[in-house]
Amino acid sequence: MNLPEPAPKDKLLFTPGPLTTSLNVKRAMLRDAGSWDAEFGSLVANLRQQLLKLAGVSQEAGWEVVLLQGSGTFGMEAVFQTCVPRTGKVAVLANGAYGNRMVEMLERAAIDYVVLRTAEDTPVPPEALAKLLVLDGAITHVSVVHCETTTGLLNPIRALGNVARSYQKAYIVDAMTSFGAIPLDLEQCAIDFLVSSPNKCLEGVPGFCIVVCRRESLEGCEGRARTLSLDLLAQLQGFDANGQFRFTPPTHSLLALNQALNELEEEGGVSARAARYRRNHQVLLEGMRPLGFWPYLKPEDQSYIITTFQYPRWPGFSFEAFYRKLSQKGFLIYPGKLRHVDTFRIGTIGHLFPGDVEQLLQAIDATLAEMGLASVGGLDAEAAIEPAHG
Amino acid sequence: MNLPEPAPKDKLLFTPGPLTTSLNVKRAMLRDAGSWDAEFGSLVANLRQQLLKLAGVSQEAGWEVVLLQGSGTFGMEAVFQTCVPRTGKVAVLANGAYGNRMVEMLERAAIDYVVLRTAEDTPVPPEALAKLLVLDGAITHVSVVHCETTTGLLNPIRALGNVARSYQKAYIVDAMTSFGAIPLDLEQCAIDFLVSSPNKCLEGVPGFCIVVCRRESLEGCEGRARTLSLDLLAQLQGFDANGQFRFTPPTHSLLALNQALNELEEEGGVSARAARYRRNHQVLLEGMRPLGFWPYLKPEDQSYIITTFQYPRWPGFSFEAFYRKLSQKGFLIYPGKLRHVDTFRIGTIGHLFPGDVEQLLQAIDATLAEMGLASVGGLDAEAAIEPAHG
Repeated sequence: MNLPEPAPKDKLLFTPGPLTTSLNVKRAMLRDAGSWDAEFGSLVANLRQQLLKLAGVSQEAGWEVVLLQGSGTFGMEAVFQTCVPRTGKVAVLANGAYGNRMVEMLERAAIDYVVLRTAEDTPVPPEALAKLLVLDGAITHVSVVHCETTTGLLNPIRALGNVARSYQKAYIVDAMTSFGAIPLDLEQCAIDFLVSSPNKCLEGVPGFCIVVCRRESLEGCEGRARTLSLDLLAQLQGFDANGQFRFTPPTHSLLALNQALNELEEEGGVSARAARYRRNHQVLLEGMRPLGFWPYLKPEDQSYIITTFQYPRWPGFSFEAFYRKLSQKGFLIYPGKLRHVDTFRIGTIGHLFPGDVEQLLQAIDATLAEMGLASVGGLDAEAAIEPAHG
Repeated sequence: MNLPEPAPKDKLLFTPGPLTTSLNVKRAMLRDAGSWDAEFGSLVANLRQQLLKLAGVSQEAGWEVVLLQGSGTFGMEAVFQTCVPRTGKVAVLANGAYGNRMVEMLERAAIDYVVLRTAEDTPVPPEALAKLLVLDGAITHVSVVHCETTTGLLNPIRALGNVARSYQKAYIVDAMTSFGAIPLDLEQCAIDFLVSSPNKCLEGVPGFCIVVCRRESLEGCEGRARTLSLDLLAQLQGFDANGQFRFTPPTHSLLALNQALNELEEEGGVSARAARYRRNHQVLLEGMRPLGFWPYLKPEDQSYIITTFQYPRWPGFSFEAFYRKLSQKGFLIYPGKLRHVDTFRIGTIGHLFPGDVEQLLQAIDATLAEMGLASVGGLDAEAAIEPAHG
């Protein structure tokens, strides 16, 4: 019998995901499950129950978890393609790439929409949504990103949801990088559909997406679906009928999530995970400042999920070289995604701990020295760069 | 450091997939790859090249491989949703559940179609397609399943493709359970779009699908896509631009396919794999007959991928009990999917060998004995059942 060897030492992923996962999460994939078998059916049923619990809701209170093959984007699009009627209109609240992606989805599906756009460093103001809903009575759905990974910005999903509820609009939240790490109350946020992913703060691996929704909201969408694969209601009805995915499930990714959820519980649940990520983020910020790097966002708008840093104004700074040298040292960071400012991003989620962040900081320090930028960064940081906000 | 333990002894999967895979394929997933990193980009580029080679085509000759998140069904639907114009019409050649599923996809997308249906035990006759194409000039696309997993039946995709070509129709083939196991020549079959899956005869794990297509055929579809996630052309353009998936890729499933393709090459390529599966199938048939089980299809229409067996006419036979007892012995078979005949299915693909099939046969023999059916099956098989075809 071949013994599996230990996993090679992978680079640590300081990215928005896929993320570094625990060895045991990966080991859970050393199996081949029969997708039609009762044992696998129990695993899927159990996963859906655990995810409901994690979301703080229950089937008894009218909530369901629908798992769907594909990445998180597939889940967001599945909500639009399944739920918005031909005569519907979606208000997209956008302040980054993931809000913009919603617009692309609506364009493709020929669904009417209006965009309430704020700058990439500005959360959507609930009073602006209220005004829009008064002005445009055709709007049926409101859609927003919780943690806009473009920057790391947090939108006020509870206040926005309460505006949507008071005008009786369906409310869709992209919680891709927040679910499992930022405590939230779906009832109080007035959410109808929340979309997330197993390979972000749940610390599983990619292969499917997670939709938490009110059964009533989804069942009201009968006959609207424009695709078969992305038909969320049919997917729920499939689970209802026999506990199975309608089409081949990503069995190994599901086994991994099962282990990942066990580890989340062992860690102490969402609040404990939130505390670890918050510490990761604090260690990062405190270590980056003396090296000459300032965050793009104001502290009050900044999540502890991912942080956008402005390029320093040092003439010799090249992100490509910076990235490559960090990669050679075993650390992967992430490029920026802003349209008007040169930035890069560092994620602080996944199976990473404050000690890992400290190692990253040491590697950044060493990299700056190699690039001949250490003295500028180390000794005269405040003079070398100019924070975006005073 | 925790050493990964050996995988537990999984049940052997005699199903249409997900299948039994090698331990090394699963071990390839003991890693966390950064989806934006150059190393992962090289892996994806290499996978696409290897798949082209496996399909016997090349970029130079105008072919591309597009990988897309989701199950195989997502790939078939992506072809329809991306490629058929608003004024297009698809001729669906159907003789089973997967042909019917195409019809469902076209219904959802409000794409016009016509079904050329034959019985579930009857391959689509090419001359019937020719007649249809003469009669209905509105048809723009022809779509067919190569190995209809409902039964295990093989459709004559080369002859059908040549009819489609002679009438200048785009030709779409669902090769989900045949690619990698049944040698085929895409040029000679006149295929524009071939859709397959990593978790069938390539012996990888689920998480994405594989579309092999003529670049020209796909590029001609600009502006037609009705969804963002399933937009195959945008997916190709994403690979063109930076070698990356547009949205989070199933990194672990891709690592697994890389190892699976190495193992396919070590085995001796498609012809060697075909020979193993054919042996598996022969051992199965030869062992099932004396136990009282006859295949549903005529030998000339039967693939060596999966075999449909009729329920025996013994009064005490219950598929549920039969399945459960085999499962307890470590063997998972598959239920039937036919509308008018009671059947079950046994797959002979995946990381399974003739010795595994022999073990399954022994388990079936023992199970029949436990069910009190052994003497009927073992001693008087020919009298106990009645083959569907003389």
